[in-house]
Amino acid sequence: MIKLSNYLSNQWQPVTSGGGSLSDPVTGQQLAVTSGPAAGLALGFNHARTTGAAGLQSMTYAQRAAMLGQIVTVLKAQREDYYAISLTNSGTTKADSAIDIEGALFTLGYYAKLGADIGATHTLADGEAASLAKDNSFQSQHILKPVKGLALFINAFNFPSWGLWEKAAPALLSGVPVVIKPATATAWLTHRMVTDVIEAGILPSGALSIVCGSSQGLLDALRPFDVLSFTGSADTAALIRRHDAVARHSVRVNIEADSLNCSILGPDAAPGTASFDLYVNELVREMTTKSGQRCTAIRRALIPAQFYNAVAEATSARLAQITVGNPRNETVRMGSLVSRAQFDSVQSGLSRLRSETTVLYDGSRQNLIDVDRSISACMAPTLLGQPDADQAPLANDHEIFGPVSTLLGYRDSAHALELAERGMGSLVSSVFSADHEFLARIGTELASTHGRVHLVSPDAEKSQTGHGNVMPASIHGGPGRAGGGEELGGMRGLNFYHRRAALQASSAVLQQLK
Amino acid sequence: MIKLSNYLSNQWQPVTSGGGSLSDPVTGQQLAVTSGPAAGLALGFNHARTTGAAGLQSMTYAQRAAMLGQIVTVLKAQREDYYAISLTNSGTTKADSAIDIEGALFTLGYYAKLGADIGATHTLADGEAASLAKDNSFQSQHILKPVKGLALFINAFNFPSWGLWEKAAPALLSGVPVVIKPATATAWLTHRMVTDVIEAGILPSGALSIVCGSSQGLLDALRPFDVLSFTGSADTAALIRRHDAVARHSVRVNIEADSLNCSILGPDAAPGTASFDLYVNELVREMTTKSGQRCTAIRRALIPAQFYNAVAEATSARLAQITVGNPRNETVRMGSLVSRAQFDSVQSGLSRLRSETTVLYDGSRQNLIDVDRSISACMAPTLLGQPDADQAPLANDHEIFGPVSTLLGYRDSAHALELAERGMGSLVSSVFSADHEFLARIGTELASTHGRVHLVSPDAEKSQTGHGNVMPASIHGGPGRAGGGEELGGMRGLNFYHRRAALQASSAVLQQLK
Repeated sequence: MIKLSNYLSNQWQPVTSGGGSLSDPVTGQQLAVTSGPAAGLALGFNHARTTGAAGLQSMTYAQRAAMLGQIVTVLKAQREDYYAISLTNSGTTKADSAIDIEGALFTLGYYAKLGADIGATHTLADGEAASLAKDNSFQSQHILKPVKGLALFINAFNFPSWGLWEKAAPALLSGVPVVIKPATATAWLTHRMVTDVIEAGILPSGALSIVCGSSQGLLDALRPFDVLSFTGSADTAALIRRHDAVARHSVRVNIEADSLNCSILGPDAAPGTASFDLYVNELVREMTTKSGQRCTAIRRALIPAQFYNAVAEATSARLAQITVGNPRNETVRMGSLVSRAQFDSVQSGLSRLRSETTVLYDGSRQNLIDVDRSISACMAPTLLGQPDADQAPLANDHEIFGPVSTLLGYRDSAHALELAERGMGSLVSSVFSADHEFLARIGTELASTHGRVHLVSPDAEKSQTGHGNVMPASIHGGPGRAGGGEELGGMRGLNFYHRRAALQASSAVLQQLK
Repeated sequence: MIKLSNYLSNQWQPVTSGGGSLSDPVTGQQLAVTSGPAAGLALGFNHARTTGAAGLQSMTYAQRAAMLGQIVTVLKAQREDYYAISLTNSGTTKADSAIDIEGALFTLGYYAKLGADIGATHTLADGEAASLAKDNSFQSQHILKPVKGLALFINAFNFPSWGLWEKAAPALLSGVPVVIKPATATAWLTHRMVTDVIEAGILPSGALSIVCGSSQGLLDALRPFDVLSFTGSADTAALIRRHDAVARHSVRVNIEADSLNCSILGPDAAPGTASFDLYVNELVREMTTKSGQRCTAIRRALIPAQFYNAVAEATSARLAQITVGNPRNETVRMGSLVSRAQFDSVQSGLSRLRSETTVLYDGSRQNLIDVDRSISACMAPTLLGQPDADQAPLANDHEIFGPVSTLLGYRDSAHALELAERGMGSLVSSVFSADHEFLARIGTELASTHGRVHLVSPDAEKSQTGHGNVMPASIHGGPGRAGGGEELGGMRGLNFYHRRAALQASSAVLQQLK
């Protein structure tokens, strides 16, 4: 049995009893255990804040960027092991594991490049100096400095690799030490990658720590200048916001929580058009990629009511071709959900949403390949639908985190926009249409309540990056229900790990800034 | 008796019983009453979010900027009344009232100019488009859209005018409707200004509302896309962060709370140097301006231990010249604290800090002009001191919101920096020195834990803008104890009232953006 020990204060800690366990979601086999409540949290966090921060901040941005490049090299060398762990612990096919693993490498590489472009400096200027005197003799220059604390990441089960590195890349580049607390169910891959990077000796002591298993005491160990980035449920997010560290010490928090993302088929995109075909492709891809376990997946398919049957038929026909089951079988296109608990949660969500929708494609009747239905967390995709979207309020409110979407018919584009906003804030929405002016207009409207708006016209068929794919050049996060956070987005991703300050001084003093 | 009624849903509401009351802090005379718990909050907030937002957002940035210019014109016409209210309700001299009143006009004018420069557009671009495809055919363009909700301001007693307008200027320019809840003790000036602006008919219906007196139900009326800006105590800040609106609905919050700002006298600034004189001037000005009731005032004067006696003597001599009392008497340089409650709080803070410091200048022995000591909230400035700063831990922890500062001796500049950071995050710190390289170096270090760093060298004697003055071109806010917020800073001040989104589309679609 593999034991996932904690790494704090530059040392692997003994695995204590009372921790959690990790299983293969296809076979049910137990794979690993984690430690009980972590010992030495306060000391470990302090080591990160002092030694870790000093080590990182003695380097320039360019040097830290080079360090990210070295992490990519180390991780690439162990790639095959990561795919094996992903298959075993997450029940994902090679293509789905790639999204997590290659997505991490791509994001690390992106920030290595961005950091090299920043160059050999210790301090970032924020804009130009503004004059505070009529003769320019006294000025205000804003600068960005790394926050004077550590970055704690409390992550979700669906991206053990990308979820770590999409946060750690901007944090480490900023010079801020990282403590990662992965979700227990899939902590193995995170733990293995952290181990490989630590053993490669790339990072200064204290720059990267990991706590697996119990989260007891984690938030209590936070101090005023620390930052906390959380990805998970809205319920846990509310607990975090109420915690003393946040409420009393102004610990800066980034939250990515629930999201009922929608994708809109344009009024012009009738059956037979290129936009229609692109839309059906995208919907099927979003439902089945990682078995729908992406926070950016399309949960609500908003379509012109008159095209309802056509979309239902085309999508169902495509879903019927998706082979589902044990990802070790080469004919399988879609693997497992991450755990039996997740499987139960999806089933319960399905029965809630079925109260107001019709089942347009019923995955439960589909054959599953090489799995024991009583043990595995595999399930085939299921398409729900309601031709009059106003009759399905729950569909805007209850997120099913699995291979399930709901077709919702809209009357006109104003209705579509209104429905999109009933999600009360989402990570992403997309629109498919050949009408460029319509896309620009509705896209600008959707931008008020969605962190990312993905607009697909047929001229972008080959180059569009996908509704659910998070690109490091674009921000990731959304308002309201989605948690109000913001990650990535190129240089914008560094903001969370920096503190902005205005330096007011004579021009002669500002010229001395290094 | 003046009744300060609430303005919600474009209507003045009847003043109900059970509200608070406002007094003259010098004479104790009651001046006005406010309403009990506000009726129609949910309706009024909804009116702001719908009608108010629609009216504001039908205009361009340039049009809203022109509206700010009209507000300046209206307020300037009533200026003399505002000074009279300020004198009566805040107990301030004309010079101190000006900081509140002229500061507001200056900030409104600044954002009117900035908005005119933005021009006739409805949407702000955030940076350049980034390519998401090798051939540039698919791109990511970030844009800023006004948040889809209202902005609630819960303000402090010390700036009834500037506190409103420094927040309302960027909010209204952004197209976001404002609800202002002033502190009851000094709500009269806020109420009168809001009344004047509403009666001038400058703003669309729902763009500006006011709730005076009871705050009951205010936070409960907030919805997911609203934003909340709070200035006040850390205790109330913690209550706000734990409230359901914030914890559950991701209401975006800006907080400016306690701050133990410091000012550092450089090791080179020996008695007799220009820096030394500038420092003593600034310290006296910060202690006495608005009777020390500025959240940016110097609470901790960090000075080289060897200059301790010299600074104590020079500062005390200057303080002895400050005439204190009824601001109606023309010989009075410093007026009253804002209320007898504030007076009691300062006295209690003084007795706490006296346990670890010496009284270097004792204001309690000073004559007060034209006041009844048993009624008025007047008090003369008091200077405390401790030659070894390490012996005065409370001085870094307890903020006395009045005309009190503590001299603290440091050993060397590393010790000064360490002491500055013991404030656990402040709004502002300043450094006085003729050594430009030292100023740039320590300024960069202080930037990690202070929102604004004010560096004064003798070449900036004439043009420096003052330690405690908040300039609209510089951000205002600080990490940790100071609340972690950020206001103003030119265009940066608009960020809080906008939601950033990434629009991903083909270049052809992005060209259609208006």
